[in-house]
Amino acid sequence: MSRKINIAVDAMGGENSPNKVIDGIEMSLKNNKENFFYLYGKKELLENEIKKRSMIEKNCEIINSDDLISDKESPLAAAKKSKETSMWKAIESLKEKKTDICLSAGNTGALLVISRLLLKTINGINKPALAALWPNEDSVGVVLDLGANIECNEKNLIDFACMGSALSKSLFDKNIPKIALLNVGLEEIKGNDILKKTYSILKESKIKNFNFTGYIEGSQIMDGNVDVIVTDGFTGNIALKTAEGTANFITKNLKKSLNKISILFSYSSLKKFKNKLDPRKYNGAIFLGLQAPVVKSHGSTDSIGFAHSIDVCSKIVKSNLIEKIESNLITVDA
Amino acid sequence: MSRKINIAVDAMGGENSPNKVIDGIEMSLKNNKENFFYLYGKKELLENEIKKRSMIEKNCEIINSDDLISDKESPLAAAKKSKETSMWKAIESLKEKKTDICLSAGNTGALLVISRLLLKTINGINKPALAALWPNEDSVGVVLDLGANIECNEKNLIDFACMGSALSKSLFDKNIPKIALLNVGLEEIKGNDILKKTYSILKESKIKNFNFTGYIEGSQIMDGNVDVIVTDGFTGNIALKTAEGTANFITKNLKKSLNKISILFSYSSLKKFKNKLDPRKYNGAIFLGLQAPVVKSHGSTDSIGFAHSIDVCSKIVKSNLIEKIESNLITVDA
Repeated sequence: MSRKINIAVDAMGGENSPNKVIDGIEMSLKNNKENFFYLYGKKELLENEIKKRSMIEKNCEIINSDDLISDKESPLAAAKKSKETSMWKAIESLKEKKTDICLSAGNTGALLVISRLLLKTINGINKPALAALWPNEDSVGVVLDLGANIECNEKNLIDFACMGSALSKSLFDKNIPKIALLNVGLEEIKGNDILKKTYSILKESKIKNFNFTGYIEGSQIMDGNVDVIVTDGFTGNIALKTAEGTANFITKNLKKSLNKISILFSYSSLKKFKNKLDPRKYNGAIFLGLQAPVVKSHGSTDSIGFAHSIDVCSKIVKSNLIEKIESNLITVDA
Repeated sequence: MSRKINIAVDAMGGENSPNKVIDGIEMSLKNNKENFFYLYGKKELLENEIKKRSMIEKNCEIINSDDLISDKESPLAAAKKSKETSMWKAIESLKEKKTDICLSAGNTGALLVISRLLLKTINGINKPALAALWPNEDSVGVVLDLGANIECNEKNLIDFACMGSALSKSLFDKNIPKIALLNVGLEEIKGNDILKKTYSILKESKIKNFNFTGYIEGSQIMDGNVDVIVTDGFTGNIALKTAEGTANFITKNLKKSLNKISILFSYSSLKKFKNKLDPRKYNGAIFLGLQAPVVKSHGSTDSIGFAHSIDVCSKIVKSNLIEKIESNLITVDA
């Protein structure tokens, strides 16, 4: 029998929780019975939801937490608040080694701050980073950092390359992932000093864990020619949100332009199109660099999106991501 | 009779030039006979093209330049090359006050470097910036800088706000444009030190020329709630190219998904959609901060896109953009 994967779930975070969380768990259990869920949240509320569903009941334990963190709270205020929030207790279970991974659709800033407070970093890493799954022409790429670190030096960026390549191996079975640095041009002289230093270190070091391919521009993120794209958290956040905004703008205008007849005739093709680009399929940002993995599900996703992020959790634990990161790291003085 | 607008055109820059340039001029002259064109490029080639078209012949003068700058040349090499390139001579005509504005679809880096070499900056500006026209839900916004300045301080960003607001007044008749700073969150504590300083200066100064609305995230660029979005050239370049890449990815996948029947039935609605988002309509990045305006047409645009950038030139001169910038500037010590 394969090993059980213990997932700590902050059941109260994000829109329409805990309903979407419980629906998502039910969905994921239909395909994958290896997962066991520790659900942190209001006990009564969760029990009422779960007792109707026998499959979930067998595969989960509810741990009461009276308090919760709202999306509007500042990360620091949320972290100082109380140790009785569902998010805090879920992350704490990782520290106590009761669970293998933590999943929350709640306040991103609070999740990053509390994770850093409770969990140690991997030896050699001083700045953990948030990685996104980004759809591309080939399949799905990894982009990091998305906003955990506003300012980064060359050591941080190289750590991101090592961590991102470990994630690409874990989730997409890439043997030697192709890595690129996000920049404003492809030539060696482009960009700021930190990028130039990072470029020259990566170019000269004899890395066997991944293949450094050089710079990439914003327009090439979705080309699918590289597996991992590395950038500082400021730039990564702007790029991700600009892409989301552009995608929303286009799909909204497409909907407005199509009349009822054309929708009828294009129904199946539009469905195929929507399906390929469905953001729920790429749901789950991964906080990398701590001694245990923490996954952030999009606050506004639904149960299908939440089920996808459970899949991500499952793959991360099965593939021993943390060990992969440890063995992937390269030493850089900075 | 209204005043003639003298446009210096680098006829050799960009793909399919000089053909698209001449076709674009012909198109624009049908709507607007106030423009007079000084065409810089291979005389024989240009004369052969023009003698077939009487309307252009009356409204242009050809100035021979034996050399040209290719897209592959580094900006510095291009600037050092020779003073006989079509781009150099077109910009030089601005310096000599023979023309009012310069338009090129050629090498962007070279255009920025040669413009800075030949033209003085507006009094008070030390970093000119490249501004884009960005479609949004409401109409069209201005975003700057797009890559002329990789690193910027608070004074530069405030200058960009002043210059962007002048451009918004010139092109879109906005009386008091709404300005925002691009950041990774909306709260005052978000972002790096330079953004925080810029925010506090803009918030406290009693500016009458524009309305500072605070921070904006990447996802909101296309919402149309602000007229001008200010950022450093690194971030602006990544944002613009990521948006372009996302738009291409989506439209490419949409095309792939639609079968022939659905295209037939959706033809007119898809045309409406395509029309609204046609990048040729937003063609023309404007180099702001020099004592004469320089406009960059997209290298890969066609004659319709080129005609749109001629319209931009015409509006800029008629509305006295440079004077508007001068009277818009606010003094900041940095």
